[in-house]
Amino acid sequence: MEDGCSEDPLLPRSLDSLHNEKNTMKRRRPSSSNHALPKDILLHEQNDYGILDQHPESLSQNKLNYKQVVIFLVAYISMGVLCFSVVRNQITGKKTNEILDAIYFCVVTMTTVGYGDLVPNSNLSKLLACILVFAGMTLVGLVLSKAADSILEKQEILLVKATHLQEKLGKSEILKQVEAYKTEYKFVVALSLLLLLIILGTIFLYEVEDLSLFDALYCVCATITTLGYGDKSFSTRAGRLFASFWILISTLCLAQVFYCLAELYTERRRRSLVKWVLTRKLTITDLEAADLDQDSTVSASEFILYKLKEMGKISEEDIAPVMQQFKNLDIDQSGTLTKSDLLLTTSSDIQS
Amino acid sequence: MEDGCSEDPLLPRSLDSLHNEKNTMKRRRPSSSNHALPKDILLHEQNDYGILDQHPESLSQNKLNYKQVVIFLVAYISMGVLCFSVVRNQITGKKTNEILDAIYFCVVTMTTVGYGDLVPNSNLSKLLACILVFAGMTLVGLVLSKAADSILEKQEILLVKATHLQEKLGKSEILKQVEAYKTEYKFVVALSLLLLLIILGTIFLYEVEDLSLFDALYCVCATITTLGYGDKSFSTRAGRLFASFWILISTLCLAQVFYCLAELYTERRRRSLVKWVLTRKLTITDLEAADLDQDSTVSASEFILYKLKEMGKISEEDIAPVMQQFKNLDIDQSGTLTKSDLLLTTSSDIQS
Repeated sequence: MEDGCSEDPLLPRSLDSLHNEKNTMKRRRPSSSNHALPKDILLHEQNDYGILDQHPESLSQNKLNYKQVVIFLVAYISMGVLCFSVVRNQITGKKTNEILDAIYFCVVTMTTVGYGDLVPNSNLSKLLACILVFAGMTLVGLVLSKAADSILEKQEILLVKATHLQEKLGKSEILKQVEAYKTEYKFVVALSLLLLLIILGTIFLYEVEDLSLFDALYCVCATITTLGYGDKSFSTRAGRLFASFWILISTLCLAQVFYCLAELYTERRRRSLVKWVLTRKLTITDLEAADLDQDSTVSASEFILYKLKEMGKISEEDIAPVMQQFKNLDIDQSGTLTKSDLLLTTSSDIQS
Repeated sequence: MEDGCSEDPLLPRSLDSLHNEKNTMKRRRPSSSNHALPKDILLHEQNDYGILDQHPESLSQNKLNYKQVVIFLVAYISMGVLCFSVVRNQITGKKTNEILDAIYFCVVTMTTVGYGDLVPNSNLSKLLACILVFAGMTLVGLVLSKAADSILEKQEILLVKATHLQEKLGKSEILKQVEAYKTEYKFVVALSLLLLLIILGTIFLYEVEDLSLFDALYCVCATITTLGYGDKSFSTRAGRLFASFWILISTLCLAQVFYCLAELYTERRRRSLVKWVLTRKLTITDLEAADLDQDSTVSASEFILYKLKEMGKISEEDIAPVMQQFKNLDIDQSGTLTKSDLLLTTSSDIQS
């Protein structure tokens, strides 16, 4: 249900764009040395093109923000509430306030908690519940995971600031720190939020719903995991109002914790592989394999490509089409691209 | 809950390894031309090192197979069944066979369906249920998503074979086809399986549990989404036996369909970006930016690095440590790695 890769190439991260500003400035400074590999040349941003030349989707995708998510969510719940207000007589169970019950039923259904304290008992209401749960799963899975991700990212920065308060880090240093231990910070933030929500839910159920402390915690666990046996649930007006918000946030939060945990595991293994690739001894066989243009020397870019392939970061499938484009552009077939190739392309464009 | 990136760098895919075999053979053939970029040089496998030099984790991770998953699952359910056999008097609800009920309760709990037809009613049994659901979520999320992935991959090959039956494709052609439309095939396979499971579940509930066809379908929907209101559930012996397997498989299958859908969406957008990056016009600014070693020409490897960065496939964070290693290895500071650099490294190793 979660949108797999958080490293979405089309959603430029806010951290990246900050990097980019810095680097653009760096690149404009006239380069003093004109030989081997100055450091700042390596720091091109991921999307190194001007604003007019931007990929159309990358602009529009950038705009999927909180506002849109909130609008989606409100629209969805409103529609659900409207439907269930119409068929309210076809739902059995303990009722409180008409609209409150509809909202509560919507949230309990779309998060798949499904206590069963309110149950549809006609074909129409059953059909509506089925539609609601599928639509809810899609919405929660596809849209909110993105929102949660960016919310967590903002919290991370606060966390780093708090833990390094005495050191007075600059903004760029904080961003660097967050970037390096991104996954770890995200996990800690999600876990802290979850604990807070668990405590909040337990206290509420204990105080308002008159459960014992143990039963309150049991009900919290059964809810956030979306188990929802329904032996304990929210039966008062205040309870259902609270539940409508609390269930939505806490189920998402637990899912995010599990997601971060999986990410953390993958990331750790990736780091271990990267470390191994970078520290293992280079052999002559490696040199020969890395020597892409077969000139018996391995340039920096050849070395980087070779090592990134070894790390599994890139594969043949990624390289093959780019290589094809390189060959097409290399009109004078020199094995390198120069300004003369570009001029030849332009003139052939004009001729055709 | 899903393990985010399916492109796990440490789990070499079976398809890749088949590619690799082919390429290794290719490389051993003496190269006839010795200038610009023969195609097969590009086809190094992702982990281009001998078997003795293999990263320790990549070997062990490769072995997480069905067997392990089944052992995990059986061990987990056995433990759950054992626990609930001990506290069986502390669970209320309609009972059938003692062991069957324990298995059924375990599955309903670990998949977070939570009908509520069997409910723990003592502190001990409630605690056990809480532990069970968290452990179950972890198990289902972390382990089974991987297993499902590789099961689907095998099915894909069958699907391609079936759809191209008249064309008599060779094995490598099938693999190529699967690789190119991996995400699409995975989605179709998961969706077909889900539909099959829905039909199977509906027929079973209609025939064995004596529900109307509509109610049977409603119960199926409420179950596979893990909603589990509990107004309709499995109450007979045969029903609970069937449910124990069917719920486990169908909930995983629906989750996989949603996961594939998200993957498909990301993949489509990635392809659109790749296409855009490869077709947009190259400018002189691009050439200058891509020219890593500032020799006024752009080699194939420089061009590939530049384009992969533009696609968002790789970032500065990936490149920086490799660049550092390159500088360390480039002992004679020529800006390229040659055999002499390797010899210098070895001799300094001996001296120290």
